Amino acid sequence: MAPKNAFYAQSGGVTSVINASACGVLQTALNSQEKIGKIYAGKNGILGALREELIDISTETPEAIAGLRHTPSGAFGSCRYKLKGIDENRAEYERLIEVFKAHDIGYFFYNGGGDSQDTAYKVSQIGESMGYPMTCVGVPKTIDNDLPFTDCCPGFGSVAKYVAVSIKEAAFDVESMCDTSTKVFVLEVMGRHAGWIAAAGALAAENENDAPHIILFPEIKLDKAAFLKKVDDCVKANGYCCIVASEGLQGEDGKFLSDAGVRDAFGHAQLGGVAPVIANMVKDELGYKYHWAVSDYLQRAARHIASATDVEQAYAMGKAAVEFAISGKNAVMPIVERISDEPYQWQIGSVPLADVANVEKKMPRDYISADGFNVTAECRKYLQPLIAGEDYPPYKNGLPDYVKMQKKLIDKKLPSFEV
Amino acid sequence: MAPKNAFYAQSGGVTSVINASACGVLQTALNSQEKIGKIYAGKNGILGALREELIDISTETPEAIAGLRHTPSGAFGSCRYKLKGIDENRAEYERLIEVFKAHDIGYFFYNGGGDSQDTAYKVSQIGESMGYPMTCVGVPKTIDNDLPFTDCCPGFGSVAKYVAVSIKEAAFDVESMCDTSTKVFVLEVMGRHAGWIAAAGALAAENENDAPHIILFPEIKLDKAAFLKKVDDCVKANGYCCIVASEGLQGEDGKFLSDAGVRDAFGHAQLGGVAPVIANMVKDELGYKYHWAVSDYLQRAARHIASATDVEQAYAMGKAAVEFAISGKNAVMPIVERISDEPYQWQIGSVPLADVANVEKKMPRDYISADGFNVTAECRKYLQPLIAGEDYPPYKNGLPDYVKMQKKLIDKKLPSFEV
Repeated sequence: MAPKNAFYAQSGGVTSVINASACGVLQTALNSQEKIGKIYAGKNGILGALREELIDISTETPEAIAGLRHTPSGAFGSCRYKLKGIDENRAEYERLIEVFKAHDIGYFFYNGGGDSQDTAYKVSQIGESMGYPMTCVGVPKTIDNDLPFTDCCPGFGSVAKYVAVSIKEAAFDVESMCDTSTKVFVLEVMGRHAGWIAAAGALAAENENDAPHIILFPEIKLDKAAFLKKVDDCVKANGYCCIVASEGLQGEDGKFLSDAGVRDAFGHAQLGGVAPVIANMVKDELGYKYHWAVSDYLQRAARHIASATDVEQAYAMGKAAVEFAISGKNAVMPIVERISDEPYQWQIGSVPLADVANVEKKMPRDYISADGFNVTAECRKYLQPLIAGEDYPPYKNGLPDYVKMQKKLIDKKLPSFEV
Repeated sequence: MAPKNAFYAQSGGVTSVINASACGVLQTALNSQEKIGKIYAGKNGILGALREELIDISTETPEAIAGLRHTPSGAFGSCRYKLKGIDENRAEYERLIEVFKAHDIGYFFYNGGGDSQDTAYKVSQIGESMGYPMTCVGVPKTIDNDLPFTDCCPGFGSVAKYVAVSIKEAAFDVESMCDTSTKVFVLEVMGRHAGWIAAAGALAAENENDAPHIILFPEIKLDKAAFLKKVDDCVKANGYCCIVASEGLQGEDGKFLSDAGVRDAFGHAQLGGVAPVIANMVKDELGYKYHWAVSDYLQRAARHIASATDVEQAYAMGKAAVEFAISGKNAVMPIVERISDEPYQWQIGSVPLADVANVEKKMPRDYISADGFNVTAECRKYLQPLIAGEDYPPYKNGLPDYVKMQKKLIDKKLPSFEV
């Protein structure tokens, strides 16, 4: 019997290393031809399966596939599209199985966050119930670092490094000019509900009084009076104050400080613009000259300053997913297990998808200082190894030499399906 | 007769390579002890001279001074402080000469932009008229690339590289998700009156239809209808549209699209926040989902992604300034002279300070495309070599290992002076 084919897709917000996971999946699958037949990637994630838009990996060059390791974003396209519950829209799940059946696909590798692991789990269930059992393995990915069980999520270490490096550099700038210019600088970073990314900014402070001086977490409602006092004290003591603010920061009323009112396909608010809100608050109440920056997509696309640890783990998760699948494991996701902090050592573990789905890991309260404006030593110990090492992409003409895929689709076999 | 002492100061907005110029000045001066005695740096720029706060370079280690080459910002402190005209405040100029005289300073090296070169020129004049002739040499610096005569300004190449790399990376992100998510992305960059930095974003577009698709220059008043049509056409053709917008962008009425109302010591408006204005315009008129980023200080502090060409030229300008001074040149500034585009070759020239002062070099109109939304081939040819090469700083614990100076002040000899 010919081996079953494999399907790989990227889901949700992309990262600077999700393609490194793709590289791990594809290179490992290509080297497992006794177990895996053809390999397809979904064009624009799970939509590629629903629409029967399957990218033929055999038409991509080995060089391009190797180049995925140093290329940010989702090379095959990703999507913000959450499948409804099985009871609400069984037709979608059945369509997936039909497409997989039509193309003799027996392996489903889904690279994403909590929502995506939920989808992978449901596909494994519905395949079973439809008499077309699939091997479904998740590949963890999220800059938010909010997946449970895994010590960290591929994608997080690199955004953490970007934020720590950026606030360190900006703080050098502010410090050198604070006598006659900007006294307060606010850097807004991502993180809707979990403050991991904001926390990573604290790594830039290697000595007491180093910037950043204040971290604003989504887990801690902003105590405006305490915050303003801390800013004022900091400017008086150091001449300047650098702040890292999470986009998900809430006021004492529990509302996001800045909510553009737009919601994405998952019903999440589209945030952005908390930095100017904080900066104006400082200006109005304390009168200090301010500047602010919003990193937005730059932070999660910044492959040029990726963490070598993160790249290595992202690749390893992709590789492990395929190894799990061909060894007969099903409905699982590989995870990073920390063995020791110093020296940093880790190994690959696994967790059932049923346990991962839709669980969000927030910052433990003991990772945030008592006053709510900084991280603890425990948190630093956790974060430090995740930004370690540099893994520079190759450059051409002064720019990173990132790869693009051909994305050649195979012929459709089924009628079209409305999504 | 003992050789005269030297004074070096940094002025205005700092860059990721102004310390590389400092490194060039200090290492060259330290190696010229037959001509130059002690070396002092102004604490917080020219204010250090007015306040008689002189940093003793002999107490800094050779390792720290070497480390300036890879450290962003102004290591001795910079300032936004413009000396008034000689007729308006002769006392300030006389104070400078008094301080220089008290500390036997015969060399004045001033590292800054157009305003600073004006100051250096005035100091050379007033010294002459007060019977204390000084050798005054400017060291060019400005991310805005708006100094005349020099082919480019140290500091610009690195911010150009940062912007080109950042928009390239963010565009990969947007492209991979545009089917179901963000369709329009706006990156706001610095540049009050000259669009050089925004233009540099265009280098990310190596092939037709590559992002960025639209550049908004401060030199071209925004034609809203033409802009919106271009965005819409771009989204329809490519699925997404990436825009680089200069903070100095003006509407058809000639007003800045976003003016916070704050003015700095030079009377310039403190800008910021044009990206959300543009993004909201797109949302309101076309309904596309958007994201925006504001790089602010991150772009001019990003030593981690500095252009090797820029670092080399910044160092060379500092070195040349000292060599000019000890060879008897006065009231001049070293400049970069381009010999050829391909291969890129350059040499050091010089220009009288009297000619540099207060002249702003804008983008030539033939560097901007006819429709005003992109650069021309001529412009790309000019910009390309300036971002070439990487010059990574050393790293420790996952972060760039930047240096800080001791900044030990020498004893004052004069009564204090109110600035």
